[in-house]
Amino acid sequence: MNAIDRLVILLSKFPGLGKKSARRMVYYLLDGDPQYAQVLAEHIGDLHQEIIRCTVCGNFTEQEPCPICADTSRDPIICVVERAQDVQVIEESREFRGRFHVLGGLIAPLEGINPGDLAINPLLNRIPQEHIREVILALNPTVEGDTTALYVQQLLKGYQVDVTRLASGLPVGGDLEYTDRLTLSRSFRGRIRL
Amino acid sequence: MNAIDRLVILLSKFPGLGKKSARRMVYYLLDGDPQYAQVLAEHIGDLHQEIIRCTVCGNFTEQEPCPICADTSRDPIICVVERAQDVQVIEESREFRGRFHVLGGLIAPLEGINPGDLAINPLLNRIPQEHIREVILALNPTVEGDTTALYVQQLLKGYQVDVTRLASGLPVGGDLEYTDRLTLSRSFRGRIRL
Repeated sequence: MNAIDRLVILLSKFPGLGKKSARRMVYYLLDGDPQYAQVLAEHIGDLHQEIIRCTVCGNFTEQEPCPICADTSRDPIICVVERAQDVQVIEESREFRGRFHVLGGLIAPLEGINPGDLAINPLLNRIPQEHIREVILALNPTVEGDTTALYVQQLLKGYQVDVTRLASGLPVGGDLEYTDRLTLSRSFRGRIRL
Repeated sequence: MNAIDRLVILLSKFPGLGKKSARRMVYYLLDGDPQYAQVLAEHIGDLHQEIIRCTVCGNFTEQEPCPICADTSRDPIICVVERAQDVQVIEESREFRGRFHVLGGLIAPLEGINPGDLAINPLLNRIPQEHIREVILALNPTVEGDTTALYVQQLLKGYQVDVTRLASGLPVGGDLEYTDRLTLSRSFRGRIRL
C-alpha cells in the first residue's frame, strides 16, 4: 500500500466521507501547492493542543472559560445541546442570546450511553450558581433526544426554573406531501393560533 | 478567529467540501482520539515527500518509474488520460492491461490551458520508444476533452499507430428519458450492430 492509499484510508474515517471523496482530496493535495498540505498538516496536528473543553459549559474553546461563558451580559437562560457543534449552529442563527450547556451525547441505553455519561450534574449545579430562569432543551427530535429531554426535565422539577423545548414541526420550505407521519403529528400537536 | 475556524477555512478549499462538511470534520477530530489527528497530520505533511510523478507516464508514484511503467508484461497500448486519478479508476475496472499517459489537463484556451501546457510531446516520444501499436484517448466527453482528443489525433497521424477513443453513450443503468440530447446523439452515432 502506498502513501496515497494510506491517506485515503485515514480520511475515509471521517463521517460522510466515502473512499471516492477521500481519494479526491488526496489528489487535490498532490496536484496543489505542497505548502498548503504542510499548513493543513500543522493545523490538524495542533488542533488538540489549541482547543480545550470549557469546564463550565463543555463547549470547545481556546480559552477557559469560553468566550460565551465569560460574557456576563448574556441572558440567564441555558440552552442545552447534545454536542459542541450545536452551539455553533445556534450562535450563527442569532436567535438566542443566553448561555449554553453541552451534554456530550444523548441517553441511548442500547449504545451503552446512560445518564451518568452525560454532563447533567454540572448543568444542575449551574442553575442556582448563575441564577438561571429558563432551561431550553435544544435536543434533536429523535427517540434519544426525547428520552434525554424527559430525563432532564424530571430532574429540573426540583429547581425554580422554566423548562422548554424547541418546537418540532414542518421545516421551513418543506413540503407537506413529503413530510413523515411523526413530524406531521408533532406539527399538529404544536399548532399555533393565528 | 480560533483554531477551529482556521482549520475549517483550510479544509473548505477541497473541491466539493463546503464549510458545513469542513466544520463537521473538525468536530470529528476534536471529539475523537488525538492520536488519530496526529497520524493524519503526519501523513498529510509527508505526502509530497513520498509521492512523486513518474517521469515516463506522469502518474503519481512512490518509485521511479511507477510500477505500471516498470511492468514490461503490459500491452504496448497507451491509454491517454487527463489526470493521475483517472489511471486509478481505469486500473480498478481491470478492463485494460496496457500502459498509461497522463496529459495533466485538457486544452482550454479560455482558462489559459494550451497544448504546450500538456504532456503531449512526451507521449509522442513514447510511441516509437515503446513500440506502441494503439493509443486510446480516454478523455472526458466534454468540449475540452473533444478538443484535446482532436488535437492529439492530428499529431498522431504521422505515427504508425491506431488511435481510438472511449465510446460515449448511455450510462449503464441510466434512463433514456433523463438522458441529455448530446449523449443521446452520441449513443445513436456510436450504435452497435447486434
